[in-house]
Amino acid sequence: MTAYTELEARFRRLGAVEQAIAVLHWDAAAMMPAGGTTARSEQLAILRGIAHQLLAAPEIGDLLAAAEPDAAELGPWQHANLREMRRRWRHAEAVPADLVEALSRARSASEAVWRMARPADDFAMALPGLKRVLELTREVALVKAEALATSPYEALLDQYEPDGSTVLIDRLFDEITGFLPGLLDAALARQGARPASLEPRGPFPIALQRRAALTLMERIGFDFLHGRLDESAHPFCGGTPDDVRLTTRYDENDFTKALMGTLHETGHALYNRGLPAEWRLQPVGDWRGMAVHESQSLFLEMQVCRNRAFADFAAPLLREIFGGAGEVWGADAFYRRQVRVRPGPIRVDADEITYPAHVILRYRLERAMLAGDLAPSDLPGAWSEGLQQLIGVTPRSDREGCLQDIHWYDGAWGYFPTYTLGALIAAQLFAAAQRALPDLTDQIGRGEFGPLFDWLRTHIHGKGSLLSTADLVAEASGKPLGTAAFERHLRRRYLE
Amino acid sequence: MTAYTELEARFRRLGAVEQAIAVLHWDAAAMMPAGGTTARSEQLAILRGIAHQLLAAPEIGDLLAAAEPDAAELGPWQHANLREMRRRWRHAEAVPADLVEALSRARSASEAVWRMARPADDFAMALPGLKRVLELTREVALVKAEALATSPYEALLDQYEPDGSTVLIDRLFDEITGFLPGLLDAALARQGARPASLEPRGPFPIALQRRAALTLMERIGFDFLHGRLDESAHPFCGGTPDDVRLTTRYDENDFTKALMGTLHETGHALYNRGLPAEWRLQPVGDWRGMAVHESQSLFLEMQVCRNRAFADFAAPLLREIFGGAGEVWGADAFYRRQVRVRPGPIRVDADEITYPAHVILRYRLERAMLAGDLAPSDLPGAWSEGLQQLIGVTPRSDREGCLQDIHWYDGAWGYFPTYTLGALIAAQLFAAAQRALPDLTDQIGRGEFGPLFDWLRTHIHGKGSLLSTADLVAEASGKPLGTAAFERHLRRRYLE
Repeated sequence: MTAYTELEARFRRLGAVEQAIAVLHWDAAAMMPAGGTTARSEQLAILRGIAHQLLAAPEIGDLLAAAEPDAAELGPWQHANLREMRRRWRHAEAVPADLVEALSRARSASEAVWRMARPADDFAMALPGLKRVLELTREVALVKAEALATSPYEALLDQYEPDGSTVLIDRLFDEITGFLPGLLDAALARQGARPASLEPRGPFPIALQRRAALTLMERIGFDFLHGRLDESAHPFCGGTPDDVRLTTRYDENDFTKALMGTLHETGHALYNRGLPAEWRLQPVGDWRGMAVHESQSLFLEMQVCRNRAFADFAAPLLREIFGGAGEVWGADAFYRRQVRVRPGPIRVDADEITYPAHVILRYRLERAMLAGDLAPSDLPGAWSEGLQQLIGVTPRSDREGCLQDIHWYDGAWGYFPTYTLGALIAAQLFAAAQRALPDLTDQIGRGEFGPLFDWLRTHIHGKGSLLSTADLVAEASGKPLGTAAFERHLRRRYLE
Repeated sequence: MTAYTELEARFRRLGAVEQAIAVLHWDAAAMMPAGGTTARSEQLAILRGIAHQLLAAPEIGDLLAAAEPDAAELGPWQHANLREMRRRWRHAEAVPADLVEALSRARSASEAVWRMARPADDFAMALPGLKRVLELTREVALVKAEALATSPYEALLDQYEPDGSTVLIDRLFDEITGFLPGLLDAALARQGARPASLEPRGPFPIALQRRAALTLMERIGFDFLHGRLDESAHPFCGGTPDDVRLTTRYDENDFTKALMGTLHETGHALYNRGLPAEWRLQPVGDWRGMAVHESQSLFLEMQVCRNRAFADFAAPLLREIFGGAGEVWGADAFYRRQVRVRPGPIRVDADEITYPAHVILRYRLERAMLAGDLAPSDLPGAWSEGLQQLIGVTPRSDREGCLQDIHWYDGAWGYFPTYTLGALIAAQLFAAAQRALPDLTDQIGRGEFGPLFDWLRTHIHGKGSLLSTADLVAEASGKPLGTAAFERHLRRRYLE
């Protein structure tokens, strides 16, 4: 057995353990009775420990070194596989076990306090945990930066967005903040000049909402032989590529929430399902990074399902399922509700135009905190000031401000920028798909999604982690990642 | 850290991996879409490999040896824990890895062929697989017999029924075959002298059947904070003690199947849930063996729920849930259906009197095949002859005969006797519970199960694997395991 094939065998074991963890995580969110929590936490902690041991084993380092000289004889997929194995090993191996454990404990403790502090609007309660997580995260960033030969922030970013670069992100985000305030004002002015959009009246029975979600998922191409839809408090796309587990959450008074949430997660699901089957359980067969993953959910949710043509397809279906009647159930009203602009303090409720501002604010603040330029105790003020400057909104409380997101309290630093990178990629890919499929808009209007997702499978899903994000986007769209397609998309949708 | 505490830490990891396997197994049966099969098999195979490595690691042997001198300082639970650790390690360590793998492959292949051979009634198709599994099982039995200092059959039996003895089983089974034919004839004569029992007419909607099952489970004491009820093709009780996953299967034309199946599994569930919480993930905290486990399902199903008093409690509930009326929904009719005797060729459809005959037949045949006294090719003839002799029934085909059970084809040799040992234990425990709770029958009639299950938790569930099966039964019931209570139970129920 060569060093490379031995590595494949070892990463296959690791991959299977990670899949088991994914299924147990889904089960905990969607199926498990409340009394199972403690036992499940223990199972997951032990499986994660086993996964870490498999990855950080000293033999992996030796095998990676031994595989190096043969790398020239490997094909492009094996070559990329080796690169991704090395990346994962470096991340795992860089951090001493006691630091891993200390951060893990600090995250759990801080997250638990945050769950109480947010509803209580008590930032002071959450602050000590946040400080401790930040301190340990900074330590991790330093050792990983050393191992990856990059900056501390980029070492954290690399966990979510491999090879992510702050130079690129700064440039893209500066471009966005350049055009966004003007575009937002114009969109609001245009919206304000029209009558308010029509709202269908609830309640909307959950059984019908579920039928609507399943109907659209099926029409879009979700493969129920390899996946299912359930409920959980925080909707997500979990499971494995051959067994995708989506969850949603129903609100009896507003069917749009579950519906659009399900379509967003369906975008993630189609990506997972379309990953290259011949590279299952290998790093190169895995999804490319959080930016590309988010691009797939936003591609479906924002580019396809909030497209005017989609309203022609979906509105009659929904009218029939919910037994609605009149103009409020028509395609125009549906579309108007889909593209409503409402600047507000909460990121997860934000519209397509203001969402990037929420992300840019968090990116700037987390970089400043990691660099030591912003003390966590000064976060509330910096948050309010930043949001006011970006979209003219000031949170009325920390609950609406720096307490709203779980990320930092739970240790996810370097994650936020991937949301907006995903939105940029989605817009650029949709523009490319439109060039490749001149009939695309009409297809969406007729509910024909086959050619579009064939295109995505060929250019994105089926590539796994063969290419870097930069190369993947450039090859699929014909140009390097930029903000032009996103800006053009917003101008067309909201100003024309 | 002492050798003993190091062992506890290692078995804790093993226990958590085994719990993860249990949840993934439940998910595969109850939730997983069909397309997930291949990926799940791989996940389970890899986790089982990891569990085997954790258990068979050479350090475990060293630690067990090192813990020996300190054993005198350990309390009774730690002492028993060490004994059970040693048992598990011996089983795992005895079998060379290539034999484990060969048997595992032979089992999968044979089981897959059996799945086609049974509906096709084609024993010749299944025979080569059966031979191969038998051959490898015999090899395993030999090496385990050496490691455990016991006979080959008892080495297999020990996997399911620790310390199980063929001398005891032979004696018990001979006693049963002594009284069973006469008892069966008398019960059939008595039954034949009465009018046929009344049958309610279906269909019975599945939603109502589910409500009936949940209502009875809840009344009996199933803890839905730590468990749930779902559906699967082959009902079972899975999950973990703090998160019990029951499954059932509904037949629209006969609500009794799902109901009695659920009650049977609820007996297993209450045992799992009642295992000693302070010994979670340790071998001593686990269930005692298959005989005791089966005794708990049969205790609930046979001793409690087919008791005449239970009919007084359950019949009105069922009448209300299904909206029934008339004598057919009354307690007498319910009870008559519960205790109907119908000798037939199929074990899983057998009544309480003839069930032991099915088990005894299999026990004799599997011992003869393992000893080389019966060639697998002669199995069909030996089967027919044996069943005819025991209960006067001859299967019309191999599908009704030696192809009906998955066990041997799937490698479960030495398992069958635990069913009837379970029935004997259940009868003996119920008799003891009646002595301890003089009001028991009236309690059952009123649907009060608290005192009964408190008694079981104290005397059986909460003991985990502290005692041997023999000591557990003797301490709980005041006498060694025998057939007297079972025979008396059958005579009372079917002849008085």
